[in-house]
Amino acid sequence: MTLPTTQKAVRWYPPKYDVRVETVPVPEIKDPDDVVVKVKFAGLCGSDLHTYRGHEGEDLAPHICGHEFIGEVVKLGVNFGPQAKERPGLYSTLKVGDKVVSPFTTSCGECRCPEGTLFGCPKLDGAQAQYVRVPIAGGTLYNLSDPHSWASLLPNQSVAERLATISDSSLLLLGDILPTGLFATVQALNHPKLSPLLSGISWPPRSGEAPGNLSLDDRALTFAVVGLGPVGICACVALLDQLSGLSIPYRIVAVDPLESRREKVQQIYSLISAEDKGCGKLVTRSIDDAKETVKEWTSGIGCTAVLEVVGNPSALKLSYELVQPFGVISSVGVHGAPQVPFTGGNLYDKNVSFDFGRCPARAMFPMAFELLGESIYVNDRVHTAGRLQTVLAVKRQDVFGQLGTPTSLIDRIVGIDEAVEMYKVFDQGRIGKVIFDPWK
Amino acid sequence: MTLPTTQKAVRWYPPKYDVRVETVPVPEIKDPDDVVVKVKFAGLCGSDLHTYRGHEGEDLAPHICGHEFIGEVVKLGVNFGPQAKERPGLYSTLKVGDKVVSPFTTSCGECRCPEGTLFGCPKLDGAQAQYVRVPIAGGTLYNLSDPHSWASLLPNQSVAERLATISDSSLLLLGDILPTGLFATVQALNHPKLSPLLSGISWPPRSGEAPGNLSLDDRALTFAVVGLGPVGICACVALLDQLSGLSIPYRIVAVDPLESRREKVQQIYSLISAEDKGCGKLVTRSIDDAKETVKEWTSGIGCTAVLEVVGNPSALKLSYELVQPFGVISSVGVHGAPQVPFTGGNLYDKNVSFDFGRCPARAMFPMAFELLGESIYVNDRVHTAGRLQTVLAVKRQDVFGQLGTPTSLIDRIVGIDEAVEMYKVFDQGRIGKVIFDPWK
Repeated sequence: MTLPTTQKAVRWYPPKYDVRVETVPVPEIKDPDDVVVKVKFAGLCGSDLHTYRGHEGEDLAPHICGHEFIGEVVKLGVNFGPQAKERPGLYSTLKVGDKVVSPFTTSCGECRCPEGTLFGCPKLDGAQAQYVRVPIAGGTLYNLSDPHSWASLLPNQSVAERLATISDSSLLLLGDILPTGLFATVQALNHPKLSPLLSGISWPPRSGEAPGNLSLDDRALTFAVVGLGPVGICACVALLDQLSGLSIPYRIVAVDPLESRREKVQQIYSLISAEDKGCGKLVTRSIDDAKETVKEWTSGIGCTAVLEVVGNPSALKLSYELVQPFGVISSVGVHGAPQVPFTGGNLYDKNVSFDFGRCPARAMFPMAFELLGESIYVNDRVHTAGRLQTVLAVKRQDVFGQLGTPTSLIDRIVGIDEAVEMYKVFDQGRIGKVIFDPWK
Repeated sequence: MTLPTTQKAVRWYPPKYDVRVETVPVPEIKDPDDVVVKVKFAGLCGSDLHTYRGHEGEDLAPHICGHEFIGEVVKLGVNFGPQAKERPGLYSTLKVGDKVVSPFTTSCGECRCPEGTLFGCPKLDGAQAQYVRVPIAGGTLYNLSDPHSWASLLPNQSVAERLATISDSSLLLLGDILPTGLFATVQALNHPKLSPLLSGISWPPRSGEAPGNLSLDDRALTFAVVGLGPVGICACVALLDQLSGLSIPYRIVAVDPLESRREKVQQIYSLISAEDKGCGKLVTRSIDDAKETVKEWTSGIGCTAVLEVVGNPSALKLSYELVQPFGVISSVGVHGAPQVPFTGGNLYDKNVSFDFGRCPARAMFPMAFELLGESIYVNDRVHTAGRLQTVLAVKRQDVFGQLGTPTSLIDRIVGIDEAVEMYKVFDQGRIGKVIFDPWK
């Protein structure tokens, strides 16, 4: 396939707040493991703002931004083909023309190396462009044209049919924000501190008592989701999804200072049927109101677990204030240079558990697809209560509603020429999730 | 029972490094839930040094020190008796003359209140004395004269016989350091990040692969224990104990700058039979050597989990350096006023999990007793690999050997008049575990 020699792309320039839409060369295969993908959609993500604001460094080299993309394979390195049988499956099966979605970092898929490269940094040009080069692509990409390459663990065989019902703009979210929101939830629910509440079996056993004696009231779960940007919304939905299948009372306070974000979560929540809400509720609150609500709900004890989806010291501090002694903070916010705002004594005295860090998006993909695809994912290792059921009656094929409605997670799909303005209003919190169509 | 009116006790004075052995009044019942215990032995604990050094505050009121004790009930508040049937068991069963050991904090045992009071602070006089007052004692104490009040979950009925074989100085360790070392281990082994290695079932499932495919080599566990004071030794033994029952390869590096402490751990390790060592090994290392050893063992990746048993920023920093990406730090060191020495980016980028805080000593008591009592504790909820087996062939009745031998965890049992000197040499790291006999 002959590609054009130039393309449009969004490039970042030092020191900060400077992105430009430019005409640049179309990427080529550099390494035998590379593929080139023609981008259908590229997302603008909250963590792009870290680069935009100069938080990743103000003296970095200019580079193409963006780490969320869906598109079509247009070129394959010479390592792809039937001779690659011993390597991750895609090296032998990926074809030109296949539709692919990519996690936000590269993964070799062949060892335990902790190194992956984030798209959209000086080391690797990003995807807010018409074409993107994908290194170690047979380990990195998900092939949507061949769902059996990744969906063999899913319980039914209608994956291709379900895929056909989901729009490309929704599938794009599998690259980052949906797995990340889900990961925040899964980390919290998997923590052993929640296990007695989920299973109903007390642990450690109380002196002289047989285990298995927790009443439903004793098992009530209280969660906070701190930050209701696009990933926070995904975390709320993932949490509701997982809790709705259980018969344990639960309460979720979804926290954000911006009323528009709270309103969107409320609208999405209102889509869910009473039956699917199960034994619980979600409310949205500003920061101060959230503290009051948790105090009231728990007689001052605090939340069982807090999902921190912001990535700055004040969000960590708020999470600490909201969580109960012996509670869990699952932090997926992208944290940077500032110190962690705690003394050792703060953490010791409250017996806090933290799970920090970046979502392993590739590993979470099948579960995230199930959340998107409105079916049942069977995995009894996710938490001790048994099976997770994805039972929300939300219209997921449009990710929580038609584009432009109050319930849509995606606010706008715009041409790449609007990138400069979109970065600006997104940075100011005046718009939610934006997707670029580089061909519009 | 008529008690004397005065007693000898070790009292702390502000601002720091000032403890005095004084004659003070014998405590009385102040509240109907109180009991008074005649102290047989009281421990000197590493965390007593926090008070001693003025780290808890240099303007605190003088008070009796110490939070580890074993002794005999000599007075009961009026709330004890058959009328207390609806309350925790000891309120109706505890008798004058019963032998008791106490966790280091009080526990009401009647609600989820996170407040317990530490013995040996301005709010509650400690146990380095001839008598100690125990508030909410029916929730706080363990009655060794009536093991069925707490041992009903233990698998065999020989608890009383086993108790009779264990010296009082060893039983004293059930109040703090043995449960705390065990807790550090249990927290790490219970963390879901270790679960795939313990169970052999990969999670999250790799794309297109069935779970259950981890080889024994893939499952190899690498631990560091940072800090080999008395609690660190207990953590090493608890870890060896738990790992020895599994058939998974493991490696433990036990880290301390003091050669005498490393030597003691080596000596204790040498007591264990080859069979009980199972598929692994323990080595002791200084700080720099530990980093080299972990690098070599893991090709630079790092430890699966680190047990931090020191309680200062440099121990946290070392733990972070030793742990692998997506690893677990179980921190039971008593941390104080210094800031946590990490940026948010440090924790985000490495996907670190932390479990911080004070051991719930009361809840860990039955498991700790089993570790001391050399039998098998059956609890298949501790980690996903199944049962924990306590199978070390260490002579536990003398806590790792006769007093005064190189393997003994307890260095000396001394009269309370030697307290001033003992605090001094303990503070200087020139002695290990010291126990006071207030009647000597």
